[in-house]
Amino acid sequence: MGEDITAKRKDAHLDLCATGDVEPTGNSTLLECVRLVHCAMPEMAVEDVDLTTTFLGKRLRYPLLVTGMTGGTERAGAVNRDLALVAERHGLAFGVGSQRAMAEDASRTASYAVRQVAPTVALLGNIGLYQAVRLGVDGSRRLMDAIGADGLALHLNAGQELTQPEGDRDFRDGYRVVEALVRAFGDRLLVKETGCGIGPDVARRLVDLGVRNIDVSGLGGTSWVRVEQLRASGVQAELGAEFSAWGIPTAAAIATVRRSVGAEVRLVASGGIRTGLEVAKVLALGADLAGMALPLFRAQQTGGVEGAEAALGVILAGLRQALVLTGSRSCAELRQRPRVVTGELKDWLAAL
Amino acid sequence: MGEDITAKRKDAHLDLCATGDVEPTGNSTLLECVRLVHCAMPEMAVEDVDLTTTFLGKRLRYPLLVTGMTGGTERAGAVNRDLALVAERHGLAFGVGSQRAMAEDASRTASYAVRQVAPTVALLGNIGLYQAVRLGVDGSRRLMDAIGADGLALHLNAGQELTQPEGDRDFRDGYRVVEALVRAFGDRLLVKETGCGIGPDVARRLVDLGVRNIDVSGLGGTSWVRVEQLRASGVQAELGAEFSAWGIPTAAAIATVRRSVGAEVRLVASGGIRTGLEVAKVLALGADLAGMALPLFRAQQTGGVEGAEAALGVILAGLRQALVLTGSRSCAELRQRPRVVTGELKDWLAAL
Amino acid sequence: MGEDITAKRKDAHLDLCATGDVEPTGNSTLLECVRLVHCAMPEMAVEDVDLTTTFLGKRLRYPLLVTGMTGGTERAGAVNRDLALVAERHGLAFGVGSQRAMAEDASRTASYAVRQVAPTVALLGNIGLYQAVRLGVDGSRRLMDAIGADGLALHLNAGQELTQPEGDRDFRDGYRVVEALVRAFGDRLLVKETGCGIGPDVARRLVDLGVRNIDVSGLGGTSWVRVEQLRASGVQAELGAEFSAWGIPTAAAIATVRRSVGAEVRLVASGGIRTGLEVAKVLALGADLAGMALPLFRAQQTGGVEGAEAALGVILAGLRQALVLTGSRSCAELRQRPRVVTGELKDWLAAL
Amino acid sequence: MGEDITAKRKDAHLDLCATGDVEPTGNSTLLECVRLVHCAMPEMAVEDVDLTTTFLGKRLRYPLLVTGMTGGTERAGAVNRDLALVAERHGLAFGVGSQRAMAEDASRTASYAVRQVAPTVALLGNIGLYQAVRLGVDGSRRLMDAIGADGLALHLNAGQELTQPEGDRDFRDGYRVVEALVRAFGDRLLVKETGCGIGPDVARRLVDLGVRNIDVSGLGGTSWVRVEQLRASGVQAELGAEFSAWGIPTAAAIATVRRSVGAEVRLVASGGIRTGLEVAKVLALGADLAGMALPLFRAQQTGGVEGAEAALGVILAGLRQALVLTGSRSCAELRQRPRVVTGELKDWLAAL
Ligand SMILES: Cc1cc2nc3c(=O)[nH]c(=O)nc-3n(C[C@H](O)[C@H](O)[C@H](O)COP(=O)(O)O)c2cc1C
Ligand SMILES: Cc1cc2nc3c(=O)[nH]c(=O)nc-3n(C[C@H](O)[C@H](O)[C@H](O)COP(=O)(O)O)c2cc1C
Ligand SMILES: Cc1cc2nc3c(=O)[nH]c(=O)nc-3n(C[C@H](O)[C@H](O)[C@H](O)COP(=O)(O)O)c2cc1C
Ligand SMILES: Cc1cc2nc3c(=O)[nH]c(=O)nc-3n(C[C@H](O)[C@H](O)[C@H](O)COP(=O)(O)O)c2cc1C
Repeated sequence: MGEDITAKRKDAHLDLCATGDVEPTGNSTLLECVRLVHCAMPEMAVEDVDLTTTFLGKRLRYPLLVTGMTGGTERAGAVNRDLALVAERHGLAFGVGSQRAMAEDASRTASYAVRQVAPTVALLGNIGLYQAVRLGVDGSRRLMDAIGADGLALHLNAGQELTQPEGDRDFRDGYRVVEALVRAFGDRLLVKETGCGIGPDVARRLVDLGVRNIDVSGLGGTSWVRVEQLRASGVQAELGAEFSAWGIPTAAAIATVRRSVGAEVRLVASGGIRTGLEVAKVLALGADLAGMALPLFRAQQTGGVEGAEAALGVILAGLRQALVLTGSRSCAELRQRPRVVTGELKDWLAAL
Repeated sequence: MGEDITAKRKDAHLDLCATGDVEPTGNSTLLECVRLVHCAMPEMAVEDVDLTTTFLGKRLRYPLLVTGMTGGTERAGAVNRDLALVAERHGLAFGVGSQRAMAEDASRTASYAVRQVAPTVALLGNIGLYQAVRLGVDGSRRLMDAIGADGLALHLNAGQELTQPEGDRDFRDGYRVVEALVRAFGDRLLVKETGCGIGPDVARRLVDLGVRNIDVSGLGGTSWVRVEQLRASGVQAELGAEFSAWGIPTAAAIATVRRSVGAEVRLVASGGIRTGLEVAKVLALGADLAGMALPLFRAQQTGGVEGAEAALGVILAGLRQALVLTGSRSCAELRQRPRVVTGELKDWLAAL
Repeated sequence: MGEDITAKRKDAHLDLCATGDVEPTGNSTLLECVRLVHCAMPEMAVEDVDLTTTFLGKRLRYPLLVTGMTGGTERAGAVNRDLALVAERHGLAFGVGSQRAMAEDASRTASYAVRQVAPTVALLGNIGLYQAVRLGVDGSRRLMDAIGADGLALHLNAGQELTQPEGDRDFRDGYRVVEALVRAFGDRLLVKETGCGIGPDVARRLVDLGVRNIDVSGLGGTSWVRVEQLRASGVQAELGAEFSAWGIPTAAAIATVRRSVGAEVRLVASGGIRTGLEVAKVLALGADLAGMALPLFRAQQTGGVEGAEAALGVILAGLRQALVLTGSRSCAELRQRPRVVTGELKDWLAAL
Repeated sequence: MGEDITAKRKDAHLDLCATGDVEPTGNSTLLECVRLVHCAMPEMAVEDVDLTTTFLGKRLRYPLLVTGMTGGTERAGAVNRDLALVAERHGLAFGVGSQRAMAEDASRTASYAVRQVAPTVALLGNIGLYQAVRLGVDGSRRLMDAIGADGLALHLNAGQELTQPEGDRDFRDGYRVVEALVRAFGDRLLVKETGCGIGPDVARRLVDLGVRNIDVSGLGGTSWVRVEQLRASGVQAELGAEFSAWGIPTAAAIATVRRSVGAEVRLVASGGIRTGLEVAKVLALGADLAGMALPLFRAQQTGGVEGAEAALGVILAGLRQALVLTGSRSCAELRQRPRVVTGELKDWLAAL
């Protein structure tokens, strides 16, 4: 695809994500099926909450990742810098969006470059699995290095591609590509979905190949199938409507993937996580980090750095509150607390 | 019943089906209780999807049957030719509607004759069980041969008959008739319901008699009880209302029938299937083919061949998409994938 | 209580039942949690349906009882005669309402006397448990004999009494009274509730004392608590609102009572049964007869004998249709057919 | 915090509780998931209901506690006196609200003093866990003695504190404080929540330390998180919204706590109990007493002593009615009766 087309499409995407109906109302993370249990005697102070963790060899103050969203244009550059700055200030991890536009035109690199504002942040580059095929290991590494990233997020988005008129239709050899990348990047590679979820079978195979970081990015938040539906017409739009509820709900994905891989694999849960209480729920279900894209993007679009920081402030306060009110100093303690699973999530846990 | 009455009634039926409320809103196939599971790494191309199958000794490109609907009038003839043409072009199977009108008046044969437009299609004749009693084996065979059909669909519709003022009230000796027909037609016989569903007990008995093709045609789509309700008044209309939710939901029927009969029996799942994703779900639950009537009829009525072809196009694209997104090249692979069963469908599977 | 007061109250009751909101919308028989299973090959004619049964030593053409409702006034007399006539014509059983008004004033006997219009009907007298205490065995027998009844229905209505300002507050010695009556009347005694349901524990004790006929009369139809709520004000009205959903849903009552007593006990299921399909469901769950009050009363009020007959016609046709469509010639066959139990009814069956 | 601020805040609280939306509609006690089972033959009179119990060494006529609400101002004093008078008259237990305002300014003692109107009532003082830390055992005892209380309610409210801008953030050493208090007060100490619930783990630890009275005060009624949300703005208000459904529903709390502690521990169930039927349900689930705050407060605010008495009258009548209609003379008998548990409560009972 031509370079300008990629950039134009990316801009349409940003517009839709900023104000469009990209979270179909029927969809759910199934996190509403998880109830953490109140501890009336927390025996701790809010300041005792310690959620520091390591990710990509760096220390985070909070187990949060701003998942990859954008790059390639002026506007995208501002988004990246604003959110990276926020991540730097609060000790979160940060990921840039797909670097395909940059691979096509090196002059776009600046829009992905956040090291000036975020010198110490745990930083992820980003490329699609099938772009990685074209770029090869070396091309991929160049993308990562050009922005001083600590790791590379390899994104899977077959659902989106199929709904996109100009999208990929050939998903062969995925594991072979992953294998090559994992050999080259080791612990620096993260494999992620983009809103349809990674389930236990795929996760196990990835881990067997050596992958050590997975972002399940499940159903319930930003739907890329829906985004493409909104851009499309005719058959493609009808298919988009049909499949905009397709995917593994985030709660089901993270719980079953954790069950299927060992504790040493770093798991990110993203897709529809909107509050600190929901962050706590995915940590309880087995995530090491929670990831968020849309809410921080929207906060940045309407309020810049301050807007994003305010939104994050509510999330962090809610997260600390959830920890205290379950009597958990840490993620490890949180996981030992009781929790109640209801409704459809029980069916997913029984089936997967 | 007089010949004109049969034709007139058929026309009223077509009108009601074209625009009437013949799918009661409370009814459900329970396919919404089935969630196929996203495979983030499909390892295949869309073109790898191979759903070819054999049916009535012929090869199909897609496991789809346009189930029998009409015949006997000019308008009906156009429906048959248009949809048979579409089936021929795309490699589906096709069935004509009840040939009773033709048995009553041979001059109506032309309206069932589709071989000119569909020379190679897998073609099913159609007759009601209790008409077959009257026609006998030879009369039934003549209906099939007169249109060059590859097989005969024997339809069961006790629910409709009872709601129809002029309908049958005597359903004795059904299995004896089936036995005679199966002896005569062997693999060319298909037994089908018309929207109330065939359950595992009836299926097993049919298979024990030698039946090798069954279309469960369950609850959730076109309701013939509702159609008759709309035509009736008084007691009959009240009964229609009472029984328009009667039947075995399609998802429950196909899953339990497959469990009760061996893999060698060809199973069609019809009744309320509207999208390619739903086709994939019934294949996953054990169907060899999915059947559809109303949506293709309606598309033909409003848009002729092109209308039907467009509707089918969306369905086939959705079906391929579902296969790819579960990482399944074939129906056999699809069945091995995990799936989640929720809600009321669990109760049906436990009870039947 | 004075005689006129009893009569006046009864009239207010009739008015409320005729047009008031006496079936609280949230209440349910839980019969919607029962799905009978379609049999696509019934192998029978409608005329093969044989639901004849015996009750109180008489033969019924249908397993239906018009449960006791009224008596004591002119209007009540007309209701009794009209419905008894319909019962006589169609071979159902019939019960008069509480004969307390007649016990208080013998001149009211005529309003309960239906033998002239219904010489062969299986006829039940009716008295409340605590009136029976006052009347004694002989007084009770006189009530029954005065109208030529075949049996006596002893009604339990503690729920209503407590909501009624002038109602009973003392329910002691109930079993002792039943014991005396059963010794005197044997198989001619029926014990019934009036819309709150008899559960398995009470049923077992009644059967241990020798009771051979029980009408569980469960929650989901006419609510006498609601009727009294509508008549009351202040505390009493608030209590009525609080308890108008009190009771054992009819489906739960009949299924669990049948499980707890032997096949020789005659069980009636009443309370909220409105259609022939629902009659079939209670028979499937273990009832020998289904009972109905409100719908026939209302049909009589608006259309006299013809109105009641028309309403009954729909019910009987629906019942036959349900039998045929499950492939059941008889109640015994119906019970052997599969059925699906869903939702809250599962919880009741597990708990009781 | 300054004394006036405490008093002012308390007044804002009263206003909000009197008329504000302090019971979030989505919240539930899950008592609607409990169905008591109708007993058609109660074999008892209403007057046989005997719910007398002992609490804090005193005899109650009803197992009801007016849980602690207020004190410190004129208006609060009137609430205390009116409700204490009602409790005295009907033989309930009564608790004053947090005595912190009184600890800060002894001149406020009069507003907590109810012995003049309620000389024999079982009376509870009230102090927050973290105020108790500051006051020490002796300070706490002085509060109790100053109003002639029979016991001291120690309230836990971490959920509220965290939502309150000026609230506590440090919950360390809670059990150590409890231990000291229990050593000093023994059976006179009650530990209570304030609407988020005490679960089985916390209860067991409290009991292990010697606590003999626990009020689980669960989710489903007055939400203090919501109250604070209504008072707050900005982040604090958003957090309040996020956590206003936080907590263990009252039905889940009482059932699981009873299961986890022996029969000798006195358990109060409060939080969202509004009717006599709900009182009966918590008794059936294991409570020794039911507690109520908001409904009696509101009745007092609109109708003074008479208003409160009228509201209580309905509750007591409903409670007696529930006992009679389950055929239970006493709380002990009620617990032996069958009950049906449905829906989400099943999940809580399975998880905790
Ligand atoms: C505006 C926007 C752009 C995105 N672009 C990318 C991308 O380039 N690469 C990628 O891996 N994921 C991308 N995503 C997906 C997110 O990283 C994330 O997986 C998904 O949106 C689910 O999280 P959410 O519900 O919090 O938005 C994008 C998301 C948004 C909202
Ligand atoms: C217009 C129309 C006419 C039909 N006529 C027949 C028929 O003659 N014979 C038959 O076996 N089924 C007939 N059917 C039933 C269908 O074959 C099918 O079993 C049923 O409609 C359920 O599928 P659907 O929900 O996709 O319509 C008819 C259906 C329609 C919509
Ligand atoms: C108008 C009316 C009057 C009734 N009177 C009596 C009565 O006197 N004695 C009695 O045992 N039941 C009486 N019942 C209760 C019915 O027999 C039956 O148990 C109850 O109404 C549930 O059935 P339904 O929902 O079909 O009305 C009466 C019901 C109605 C509607
Ligand atoms: C107006 C009001 C004031 C309250 N103040 C206190 C208090 O000072 N101390 C305390 O322990 N609980 C307090 N509570 C909480 C109640 O004691 C009770 O635990 C909670 O409200 C749940 O019961 P409810 O839903 O019946 O109101 C208060 C409740 C109300 C409604």
